[in-house]
Amino acid sequence: MKSDLDRLMRDRKLDAFIVTGGEEFNAARYYLSDGAPITHGTIFKLVDRRALLACSRMELEEAAKSGLEVKTDAELGYHQRLQEAEGDSLRATVLFWSDVLARLGLREGRVGLYGTWQVNKTIALYQMLTAELAQYEFLAEAEGTLIEEAMLTKDADEIRCIRSVAQRTNDVMEKAWEFIAGLRRAGDSLLDGAGQPVTIGDVKELVRRELMARGLEDTGMIFAQGRAAGFPHSRGEADMPLRAGQTIVFDLFPRELGGGYHHDMTRTWCIGYAPPDAQAAYDTVMEAFDISVEAFGLNKPTHLMQEAVLDYFEGAGHATIRSNSSTMEGYLHTLGHGVGIDIHERPSISHLRRDELCQIGNILTIEPGLYYPERGFGVRVEDLFVVNENGELESLTPFRKDLVIPLQDDGGAAQ
Amino acid sequence: MKSDLDRLMRDRKLDAFIVTGGEEFNAARYYLSDGAPITHGTIFKLVDRRALLACSRMELEEAAKSGLEVKTDAELGYHQRLQEAEGDSLRATVLFWSDVLARLGLREGRVGLYGTWQVNKTIALYQMLTAELAQYEFLAEAEGTLIEEAMLTKDADEIRCIRSVAQRTNDVMEKAWEFIAGLRRAGDSLLDGAGQPVTIGDVKELVRRELMARGLEDTGMIFAQGRAAGFPHSRGEADMPLRAGQTIVFDLFPRELGGGYHHDMTRTWCIGYAPPDAQAAYDTVMEAFDISVEAFGLNKPTHLMQEAVLDYFEGAGHATIRSNSSTMEGYLHTLGHGVGIDIHERPSISHLRRDELCQIGNILTIEPGLYYPERGFGVRVEDLFVVNENGELESLTPFRKDLVIPLQDDGGAAQ
Repeated sequence: MKSDLDRLMRDRKLDAFIVTGGEEFNAARYYLSDGAPITHGTIFKLVDRRALLACSRMELEEAAKSGLEVKTDAELGYHQRLQEAEGDSLRATVLFWSDVLARLGLREGRVGLYGTWQVNKTIALYQMLTAELAQYEFLAEAEGTLIEEAMLTKDADEIRCIRSVAQRTNDVMEKAWEFIAGLRRAGDSLLDGAGQPVTIGDVKELVRRELMARGLEDTGMIFAQGRAAGFPHSRGEADMPLRAGQTIVFDLFPRELGGGYHHDMTRTWCIGYAPPDAQAAYDTVMEAFDISVEAFGLNKPTHLMQEAVLDYFEGAGHATIRSNSSTMEGYLHTLGHGVGIDIHERPSISHLRRDELCQIGNILTIEPGLYYPERGFGVRVEDLFVVNENGELESLTPFRKDLVIPLQDDGGAAQ
Repeated sequence: MKSDLDRLMRDRKLDAFIVTGGEEFNAARYYLSDGAPITHGTIFKLVDRRALLACSRMELEEAAKSGLEVKTDAELGYHQRLQEAEGDSLRATVLFWSDVLARLGLREGRVGLYGTWQVNKTIALYQMLTAELAQYEFLAEAEGTLIEEAMLTKDADEIRCIRSVAQRTNDVMEKAWEFIAGLRRAGDSLLDGAGQPVTIGDVKELVRRELMARGLEDTGMIFAQGRAAGFPHSRGEADMPLRAGQTIVFDLFPRELGGGYHHDMTRTWCIGYAPPDAQAAYDTVMEAFDISVEAFGLNKPTHLMQEAVLDYFEGAGHATIRSNSSTMEGYLHTLGHGVGIDIHERPSISHLRRDELCQIGNILTIEPGLYYPERGFGVRVEDLFVVNENGELESLTPFRKDLVIPLQDDGGAAQ
């Protein structure tokens, strides 16, 4: 968590780190500036010192919400450096960083670089930094980064926030269920009150409205039916009509409006009735879900949870990415992942990552699934969990796990 | 525009370019894949050849919407490389890129790198690319990049799309106007039908709902009143009640749901009545707006438009960032910028950029403003323009430019 930052810096022998980037959403900047609504700004953090946020004068009022020490680029001399560099903003940035680090008392040392930016600009900046500022050694981490490690466990404020997003997301899932349960069935078509066929786009619109009414925003929900449900990340076609008796994978992972913490959950639904092969796959996935939860242990490696599920699925005759790395059907992904400001964070729950442990403060998904696009269906069930202060795996996703949404008015349709 | 890509590659002596990144919104990937709703994927483009999109098998169906040649990472041998690299995904990526480039027939040459990714991962990847793939020279552009230059002019499909976003955004602005005009005034308070004070948060919620109903999403609108309006990028505090007689800077720049093209417009409003100093500043800004439009000329440098406005404001006694680079009041920004998938694109209209010309296909804002936070007000007026096929500057923002929103029920309040 954030209070680990100084320790994590010392582990890496970092004297300082800098978070940079452009206007893109910048998870590291959001995290360190406590969600201040800024679109620019560079963070300079020296070990055991409060971080400095250098901001545009246009965003001074917003930057003040960061809780960091705040100074404008102008105060710190950026514009003078830009003039000296004859408008070359990259060169001006290099000079400016050197000015700020010196002002903070760091005239040489090891400096980590983090943030999100254009690939081309990042590399060009790095080339100039190493050419011009020989007094600093720059560290760029690919895996197990300082920011990832800090985010790996959430503090009490973050957990409170995620619990709130979770509750609102569960409420929206209920609204979607109620909407569908209220439709009228004619054959396998689903009709609204005006007798019009209801599409996936209609459901997604309702969900987006209900999210927004609760201060949340969609970040690309999946509502995929039939064959599309057989591809784990097919989002679902807006103009496709809902059909009774088809699996629908509904993966909803909204975040706070404008960026912030996520909740992540998936339910698989069949409207009206479930065909036997979908029901069988669903029962198998639910068994895998229970096996995953049972395989959890505090300070136990996460890969053991994935391996328990792989063993179970393979024993039940399903291909997995362990048994056949290029399979397009069966169990096609890892068991879960951490969730926070990014939708995919650490820890991962993968048979390929043997160094992850379940720790207090982890927020993670468990989401086994089976995919058979050529047989026209897919199934996934996902809850979000917190590893709470007692070291227990506690679900934040109480929403019911029923496969079939019974229709209030079943239109006397035969199955 | 996109059809310029091969020419722009030849200008840079590029044999190929690669667009990479993580799950972050990636404007270059969005642009080249025609908005396909993918969260992963690497694009390989050789000069004069159709681009290849290497995607996750989980997103195969979505990737097919890109119009590019699509192959899964698995088909292209990524998983085998990952095994060889013993799970080191960075090393696997380097080997994989070399495989794909060779498969496309490029065994040596000059390769541009673009996209959006974590700063630390980008640098680590670049270090390994240069160490391991000596047969390629990697180009990283900081300014005037290939992607920026392509995006600088929009093609007919893009302009059609931006026109549609523009019309919907203008409609939402009208809804906000109507909502405010329907409020009841009590002193300088504004009350809703139930007699409750209306806040900035209420207006923003209405705007977000109206945007969503039109398939648009907010990307951080500014609705800043009084002193906050005096800071160009203060977003406005949700719990602040609306007040009559204060300037409100309302800068609305939504995009298509889930990412896509923007429209960008700003109006300054005073509810009920305008105090004389705000009215005077408004008149000055409107004069500057007209001067900007008159200073436009096809193939004429954009900085001349900004300079015309700087001359005018300075002549009227206002500080500018040209006359005093650290001023916190007066005219604090450049005159405008291009708009597209990113909210700030080329061309810029700045006195510090003397190499930009107005070209057919540009989509750009004109947005002069005056800011006096200590006097409790700010003013900005912004339209979006297309430089159309006739070389004319055509506004996409017909919404009225009235300062005062007259209240239908003025509560008999004295001014």
